[in-house]
Amino acid sequence: MRNPQLNANGELTHLLTIEGLPREILTHILDTATSFISIAERDVKKVPLLRGKSVFNLFFESSTRTRTTFEIAAKRLSADVVNLNINTSSQSKGESLLDTIDNLAAMNADMFVVRHSQSGAAHMIARHLAPHFHVINAGDGRHAHPTQGLLDAYTIRHFKKDFRGLSVAIVGDILHSRVARSLIHALNTLGTTDLRAIGPQTLMPSGVEQLGIRVYHDMSEGLRNCDVIVMLRLQNERMRGPLLPSAQEFFKTFGLTPEKLALAKPDAIVMHPGPMNRGVEIDSSVADGPQAVILQQVTFGIAVRMAVMSIVASH
Amino acid sequence: MRNPQLNANGELTHLLTIEGLPREILTHILDTATSFISIAERDVKKVPLLRGKSVFNLFFESSTRTRTTFEIAAKRLSADVVNLNINTSSQSKGESLLDTIDNLAAMNADMFVVRHSQSGAAHMIARHLAPHFHVINAGDGRHAHPTQGLLDAYTIRHFKKDFRGLSVAIVGDILHSRVARSLIHALNTLGTTDLRAIGPQTLMPSGVEQLGIRVYHDMSEGLRNCDVIVMLRLQNERMRGPLLPSAQEFFKTFGLTPEKLALAKPDAIVMHPGPMNRGVEIDSSVADGPQAVILQQVTFGIAVRMAVMSIVASH
Amino acid sequence: MRNPQLNANGELTHLLTIEGLPREILTHILDTATSFISIAERDVKKVPLLRGKSVFNLFFESSTRTRTTFEIAAKRLSADVVNLNINTSSQSKGESLLDTIDNLAAMNADMFVVRHSQSGAAHMIARHLAPHFHVINAGDGRHAHPTQGLLDAYTIRHFKKDFRGLSVAIVGDILHSRVARSLIHALNTLGTTDLRAIGPQTLMPSGVEQLGIRVYHDMSEGLRNCDVIVMLRLQNERMRGPLLPSAQEFFKTFGLTPEKLALAKPDAIVMHPGPMNRGVEIDSSVADGPQAVILQQVTFGIAVRMAVMSIVASH
Repeated sequence: MRNPQLNANGELTHLLTIEGLPREILTHILDTATSFISIAERDVKKVPLLRGKSVFNLFFESSTRTRTTFEIAAKRLSADVVNLNINTSSQSKGESLLDTIDNLAAMNADMFVVRHSQSGAAHMIARHLAPHFHVINAGDGRHAHPTQGLLDAYTIRHFKKDFRGLSVAIVGDILHSRVARSLIHALNTLGTTDLRAIGPQTLMPSGVEQLGIRVYHDMSEGLRNCDVIVMLRLQNERMRGPLLPSAQEFFKTFGLTPEKLALAKPDAIVMHPGPMNRGVEIDSSVADGPQAVILQQVTFGIAVRMAVMSIVASH
Repeated sequence: MRNPQLNANGELTHLLTIEGLPREILTHILDTATSFISIAERDVKKVPLLRGKSVFNLFFESSTRTRTTFEIAAKRLSADVVNLNINTSSQSKGESLLDTIDNLAAMNADMFVVRHSQSGAAHMIARHLAPHFHVINAGDGRHAHPTQGLLDAYTIRHFKKDFRGLSVAIVGDILHSRVARSLIHALNTLGTTDLRAIGPQTLMPSGVEQLGIRVYHDMSEGLRNCDVIVMLRLQNERMRGPLLPSAQEFFKTFGLTPEKLALAKPDAIVMHPGPMNRGVEIDSSVADGPQAVILQQVTFGIAVRMAVMSIVASH
Repeated sequence: MRNPQLNANGELTHLLTIEGLPREILTHILDTATSFISIAERDVKKVPLLRGKSVFNLFFESSTRTRTTFEIAAKRLSADVVNLNINTSSQSKGESLLDTIDNLAAMNADMFVVRHSQSGAAHMIARHLAPHFHVINAGDGRHAHPTQGLLDAYTIRHFKKDFRGLSVAIVGDILHSRVARSLIHALNTLGTTDLRAIGPQTLMPSGVEQLGIRVYHDMSEGLRNCDVIVMLRLQNERMRGPLLPSAQEFFKTFGLTPEKLALAKPDAIVMHPGPMNRGVEIDSSVADGPQAVILQQVTFGIAVRMAVMSIVASH
């Protein structure tokens, strides 16, 4: 069975998940992103690659931050962008998801950026649409957030040059994190072999080791000699749930403090997908410290999204 | 008294209602739309006809779907588009509708696309504004939805070539439907003589026959030998009201099933303004079947809206 | 200490408050605005001054009207505009204001238009950001609304030619009005010496005389021989509070009626920042009368905002 993200020539036409994408495609996206970094630093931050194309930002789950990154990326590619926040309209009128999609597709859409609380929503949409439409998954349930995984990979490559030989620790709520899942797939494909998941047992997916990752429940052990630390956001709603003690308790055990950071390599970088809970998963002095590359991640994220959009649109 | 939509030369400067527009103007809009269909299929779906013009989407009643069609149409004409959802701001600050309009007009607006729950709102705005502004009615109360009527007419002409000699049945909640009203006016003007309204007595406006339409309360009778079937959306809020039995009951009597469709001509087309209630007014096998042209309606709708916008802006 | 709005060469890089800006800068903005007035009257209302720049409309306090003026101004300068309504997203996720700003800045933003309910928010953001970003205060708490003050000054200059020798009365809720505060600073700097504040004691800030303004509690006294009358909006929430009697009561004492207007000079102009409460602070016959220049203020406001944006972006 063919990868639903690739066309008959093996070219990327959708970005749904990093899982199963060949290394060459990941590397091609990262290389293309580099050229967009320089465009974002120009006086006129615009290229005509998507001129006259219609990009629909379909957010079934609201996220101003992620929507903004795709909106800005599409506008810098000169696309016409329409933002749709769908919990409030057609869906509440009882129209099905696929009827909504068919409807927008009939408006001669070119690309859909989809965020949805259900895992698999972007896949379902891509499978449903005719092949000349493009779908980019901007986060589906607990499943995948591939542009985040790619921007994380871009950041690691930018600072560490090579994926091989690195030790990367991902810390926190692995269980609910599509960010973690997408990054793990990316790093597996790109050749990082020492992958570590650090967190309480209750926030660790069962069978996570099968993804080629070692599990630690102790920060001091897990962070030792790391090159890269990826802190995950602890969702507020989890903190009130039964899986966890209080935020203070969590911070004490799994929050990244200068002391814990000192266990990693001296040139280790600290990443976070944002938005951060300062004092819950990360100490402010670390978040604002010299090893944090959290804002660079955001900058690289725009370039990576421009790269993905321009690559899928060209196929 | 002059038609408030036409200037002294009889040219269209607003689109408020189809009622009273001469056949030549309707035909000119449909002909112009054809040229925009091909633009929407191009690689660069953009023409500079409204470049540097400011189009305000004024939605006093929220409708993501309709707003999107106008937004996309205006952007493909290269206009600057500003979306305003007015229930939430100035109006709640106690400013009157006409103060809001004066205010936006003073920003050197060029065109207002207006949806409002009150019949006559778009007329009032057009009457109030200086003649160089253009108003397009995107639905006012139960009164009119002229771009929908035009796109329905476009769809019928596309599939049936000529309006004369056709039998067109409109089915469902005629009473509350601005879509039905606009289509009936369009078809009357364009020369269709066999117009049929099918629905329960409680959803039939009194005196509808004066619009040149025959009333049927029985689907088998009304659909017989039809060329075109237009299913109307049954609004959820009606279903809970006293005018109607349950949705299941309605579907049994007035829902379009393959069996009922078989009573129409074999090449009859099935239309629906969307969003559809599958299993209420239309069976899924019909909605997705070979006679349904519901998604083509959406595609034609963008072209018709581009045509209307470019025509009024040129006068 | 340097004025935080000016760079080392004394050029405007942010617009945070009119207080402390030299007269030459105010005059330069007003002169620049004049050139943009004519652009707004052209067929193609667009100039490429901000092409490829990213302008973020950051509204932490919702205001469709003000947001629209900045959106339209930025689009006519060819900028890419992203609207962010921040009460609903990141902030509710517990991210701090400055983390949100850092995040958007990392997307290679060029300009932030900021409205916030807290006085000083725009200053804090400007101080926090690297010098190549530009911040425009679109209203912060009770503190300042500098583009409104500038458009008021523009309107006065347009109709009265010279600021010197004028008598300007500001009427109503001076206490809560950032509009009043910004206009007073502008007129002080531009050379108007007869400034009058008219309103009830409860709505008069203590020490307002130190701003070079005379206080009146009686309309007939305060309006006598005025050249310019600026009516302020009475916020609904105040009217329910303990500072005021009923709206009717307020109108009787401080509402601008034709009779009270007759006390001013015969060619006095009447201004209002909008949205108006007709029958509360202003009588409809005055609001729509020949001396009202309220809609011209709106038109000038777009030009003034284009001027401010293009000036700060050029530094």
